[in-house]
Amino acid sequence: MHIGLVGLGKMGGNMRTRLRNAGHTVVGYDRNPDLSDAESLAAMVEALPSPKVVWVMVPSGEPTRATIADLRELLGEGDLVVDGGNSKYTDDAENAASLAEKGIGFVDCGVSGGVWGLENGYALMYGGSVEDVAKVQPAFDALKPDEGGIVHAGTSPGAGHFAKMVHNGIEYAMMQAYAEGWELLEKVDLVDNVPEIFESWRHGTVIRSWLLDLLTEAIEADTHLDQVRGYAEDSGEGRWTVQAAIDNAVPVHVIAASLFARFTSRQDDSPAMKAIAAMRNQFGGHAVHTEPPPGGEANPDL
Amino acid sequence: MHIGLVGLGKMGGNMRTRLRNAGHTVVGYDRNPDLSDAESLAAMVEALPSPKVVWVMVPSGEPTRATIADLRELLGEGDLVVDGGNSKYTDDAENAASLAEKGIGFVDCGVSGGVWGLENGYALMYGGSVEDVAKVQPAFDALKPDEGGIVHAGTSPGAGHFAKMVHNGIEYAMMQAYAEGWELLEKVDLVDNVPEIFESWRHGTVIRSWLLDLLTEAIEADTHLDQVRGYAEDSGEGRWTVQAAIDNAVPVHVIAASLFARFTSRQDDSPAMKAIAAMRNQFGGHAVHTEPPPGGEANPDL
Amino acid sequence: MHIGLVGLGKMGGNMRTRLRNAGHTVVGYDRNPDLSDAESLAAMVEALPSPKVVWVMVPSGEPTRATIADLRELLGEGDLVVDGGNSKYTDDAENAASLAEKGIGFVDCGVSGGVWGLENGYALMYGGSVEDVAKVQPAFDALKPDEGGIVHAGTSPGAGHFAKMVHNGIEYAMMQAYAEGWELLEKVDLVDNVPEIFESWRHGTVIRSWLLDLLTEAIEADTHLDQVRGYAEDSGEGRWTVQAAIDNAVPVHVIAASLFARFTSRQDDSPAMKAIAAMRNQFGGHAVHTEPPPGGEANPDL
Amino acid sequence: MHIGLVGLGKMGGNMRTRLRNAGHTVVGYDRNPDLSDAESLAAMVEALPSPKVVWVMVPSGEPTRATIADLRELLGEGDLVVDGGNSKYTDDAENAASLAEKGIGFVDCGVSGGVWGLENGYALMYGGSVEDVAKVQPAFDALKPDEGGIVHAGTSPGAGHFAKMVHNGIEYAMMQAYAEGWELLEKVDLVDNVPEIFESWRHGTVIRSWLLDLLTEAIEADTHLDQVRGYAEDSGEGRWTVQAAIDNAVPVHVIAASLFARFTSRQDDSPAMKAIAAMRNQFGGHAVHTEPPPGGEANPDL
Repeated sequence: MHIGLVGLGKMGGNMRTRLRNAGHTVVGYDRNPDLSDAESLAAMVEALPSPKVVWVMVPSGEPTRATIADLRELLGEGDLVVDGGNSKYTDDAENAASLAEKGIGFVDCGVSGGVWGLENGYALMYGGSVEDVAKVQPAFDALKPDEGGIVHAGTSPGAGHFAKMVHNGIEYAMMQAYAEGWELLEKVDLVDNVPEIFESWRHGTVIRSWLLDLLTEAIEADTHLDQVRGYAEDSGEGRWTVQAAIDNAVPVHVIAASLFARFTSRQDDSPAMKAIAAMRNQFGGHAVHTEPPPGGEANPDL
Repeated sequence: MHIGLVGLGKMGGNMRTRLRNAGHTVVGYDRNPDLSDAESLAAMVEALPSPKVVWVMVPSGEPTRATIADLRELLGEGDLVVDGGNSKYTDDAENAASLAEKGIGFVDCGVSGGVWGLENGYALMYGGSVEDVAKVQPAFDALKPDEGGIVHAGTSPGAGHFAKMVHNGIEYAMMQAYAEGWELLEKVDLVDNVPEIFESWRHGTVIRSWLLDLLTEAIEADTHLDQVRGYAEDSGEGRWTVQAAIDNAVPVHVIAASLFARFTSRQDDSPAMKAIAAMRNQFGGHAVHTEPPPGGEANPDL
Repeated sequence: MHIGLVGLGKMGGNMRTRLRNAGHTVVGYDRNPDLSDAESLAAMVEALPSPKVVWVMVPSGEPTRATIADLRELLGEGDLVVDGGNSKYTDDAENAASLAEKGIGFVDCGVSGGVWGLENGYALMYGGSVEDVAKVQPAFDALKPDEGGIVHAGTSPGAGHFAKMVHNGIEYAMMQAYAEGWELLEKVDLVDNVPEIFESWRHGTVIRSWLLDLLTEAIEADTHLDQVRGYAEDSGEGRWTVQAAIDNAVPVHVIAASLFARFTSRQDDSPAMKAIAAMRNQFGGHAVHTEPPPGGEANPDL
Repeated sequence: MHIGLVGLGKMGGNMRTRLRNAGHTVVGYDRNPDLSDAESLAAMVEALPSPKVVWVMVPSGEPTRATIADLRELLGEGDLVVDGGNSKYTDDAENAASLAEKGIGFVDCGVSGGVWGLENGYALMYGGSVEDVAKVQPAFDALKPDEGGIVHAGTSPGAGHFAKMVHNGIEYAMMQAYAEGWELLEKVDLVDNVPEIFESWRHGTVIRSWLLDLLTEAIEADTHLDQVRGYAEDSGEGRWTVQAAIDNAVPVHVIAASLFARFTSRQDDSPAMKAIAAMRNQFGGHAVHTEPPPGGEANPDL
């Protein structure tokens, strides 16, 4: 098939390659002329045969909304926009409705696989009508892994991004699970060789997984992760997962705790813990950091 | 090699089979004569050539301690006991010291793999001196998966059970991560087909794992898990992981939350939530379960 | 002062009484004619001298928005609306802007104190311009406790409701703190008399508080809270607190966990725990609820 | 009454004063001769009339155990030891049994009140037989607050320290509740004056408490707590509360989370978050800290 692809960064660029390797004709557009196949978004659209299919792969939020607004002016009846970015699922209904006024179809698609996707394929979770999905199905088939990795999560716009969002929420908590286990093993003297323990877990255990493979690789290269700072960004999906859970009265203890751990990792000093220290100072008589006097008991409320 | 194996339940029985399939000579003993190869523990020990190696695979705590005490009387200088059960790591130093008084060696070994181990092999994490480990190495090699799955976690007794304990702590939190994600997907109308979403996640995603395979299989057979009650036991290792973390000042938010979720699942009614309801009753004027009066505001503190 | 008061339920009715006790002239309106002083909202507005001040005390969300929309048509330049309900802080900017188009001022006010407010006074947290606040200050002074209990939280609309929202978030976690402690004391045999322990804590301890007074009273009347079900609603503010925290990257481990505990308390069976039980069934060989076989080890991964 | 008091640090010294103010005769002993009334522990015991009562107020663990062991040699039939320190409740049964061999009674007593106790009285939670408690009752009556604040938590040794331990567990979570709420208010621009909000909460609200009074005082003196580092020790009781909860299968989400927050506050860099960052590096292609390329989508799995 012919497909337009907007956004040729690390993700979009690799997806263009994988699509082309499968025999599809991709016209890519990027603001960076070194990466772009077309001089402008309009030129990219121009170059596509009708019905035109355009895959948007730009940062979520304003950039995606703006790109889709531009495409709304450039495309027409029977064409299709795919939002393959990290958009919040609530954006999709708005974008779909706006495009529908011009007869343009819409599919939202969550994409997983990172830098490994070029070689291994990308897992795809998408939402939209059966007719709209059919128009982009050949691209999905080219992008996906050899086996599985693809799902039509729902016929409403946002179903795909919702599924991808929950995927990332689960991912946060799984990462935190391994991280806590690793910290505990690192802390005790009883075990001698933590990287070998992780390596052994990769086969035959209940906790074997791709994330475990990655962490094992990391600590085999840098045993105590001395080269890494304990600082983790979050990309939005973890937040949205907890918010969606709260909206639906679903208790998500571990996903929320994982998200909060990332927030904490980015604080130089914790305001909350300042408040705790201040309260301890108040009832402890400002003696918090001093040793108990010789022979004397420390404050039993601290 | 020749090996004695005490405890021929679901785990021990399958391990005997796998050891025999690898060409080892196993003399098994179980209190159930239908399962046992020997008439008594003493007869089992008698049947082994020296140096004798006995693998204990009975419930942790008192049963394991009692079996090891019995073996202490039956074995002698140069023999070896392997505790392959679920013992707490702090038991191992005691057992090792007691056996050492008689010149008997000791290896602790955490075993993972469940009912799948017979076919796929068992992951093994063991602790003990290099000499002691060497005596049982052929059995380890027979039990382990084709690839990897085996680690000498430390030379001190308890290192193996400690590693296995942390494995189970991580397992608890990973299971909780998938469970929370599944509950959220089940709750919303936006996505149409949750089992297909899980099936798709098995390939190409960041969260692919063996546990995901298992959960997918379960919800493919019983979409909403109507046949399963939301009730989960815990076997001790989750508790010990949190306790070891606390002893070492390691924050384990998600492992602890996963353990607490299991506790809650076993309560008919939550005492803590009764206390919360009682407080709400107190400041709400006992109107907790009633609707706000027509035109009136509900208590804004509830 | 003269003041209109819309919504004469448990909260509004008591507030009318307290305002009248302080010498103010209150014209109340409620959909329930038995409670109402005026035949209609319009009649209530009619009865007030200019500049008119109307306090809205109806359920948050649609009822409050609709009441304010109606008042927008009935009031005019220089008049003032106070939203004393439980509105989400993000509603306030919208309501303020809409009223401002007609020259009508707006103050948002979070109210705490429940059924005890009539006697003890209501704590008030309000937001709005200094001029607008001045118009309703006499009512604030009548409603507040003898000492303190009143704050102009910010000059932007929503500041008052935001402060009240955080108050409720803290309240959730404090209640959970006492509840967990009570459950633990209830569970152990070591302590003999839990109500007396709580009673003793009311004086001289670090944890003395009004909530502790309430819980103590409850368990003095019903030692094991047999008459109460462990079920707790949430009114929105706990959810909004966590969502605001997430929007601001503030880690709120205990407030979120308290909210999730309420969600769990309302579930007959936990979907998440069904998923956990299902996974355990898968790797445990469907033997989850059975005892370990005699002499045999249970599955060490469970 | 006459009473010996071992340990005259900040707590013990103030308690001696309060006991003397009530007319009791206190012979204090401390390793620091500047504080001590007696030249040695033996001299202190010597100075007491029979039956002798000695209150131990030294750091928990080894110092308390050693002091009690010394007193076991110096006291005799009918005498009494009170452990008023922060001992773990499981220590008490051992100490009681050891003293009982010599006919010496034992009472364990948790003490709350900190530096405020001298003026306001100390809350006391004690365990032991009715006869033993009777021997020290006059001291309890002198130390306690004017109203309440005193409880015979159980007749078994350890009941008092258990109740005090749970008190401290609740305290941790309450402090965390206020701390999280404060951090959120500090973070947003919507509210103007956080200290005034806290001050207002001290009266008429659901969350008024002594801890709130303390925190309010702290932030009135140092609005943003710039003079305080977000670092909090823990004294053991929080850990023991969580461990006791785990032993009894009681879910303690907020107490545990509060404890973990203290652990985190003492880490320069979080090992767990290093592991998370390392995993993100692995699947993100080492581009974690860089901006998305112009026009390109960031990795949607991060």
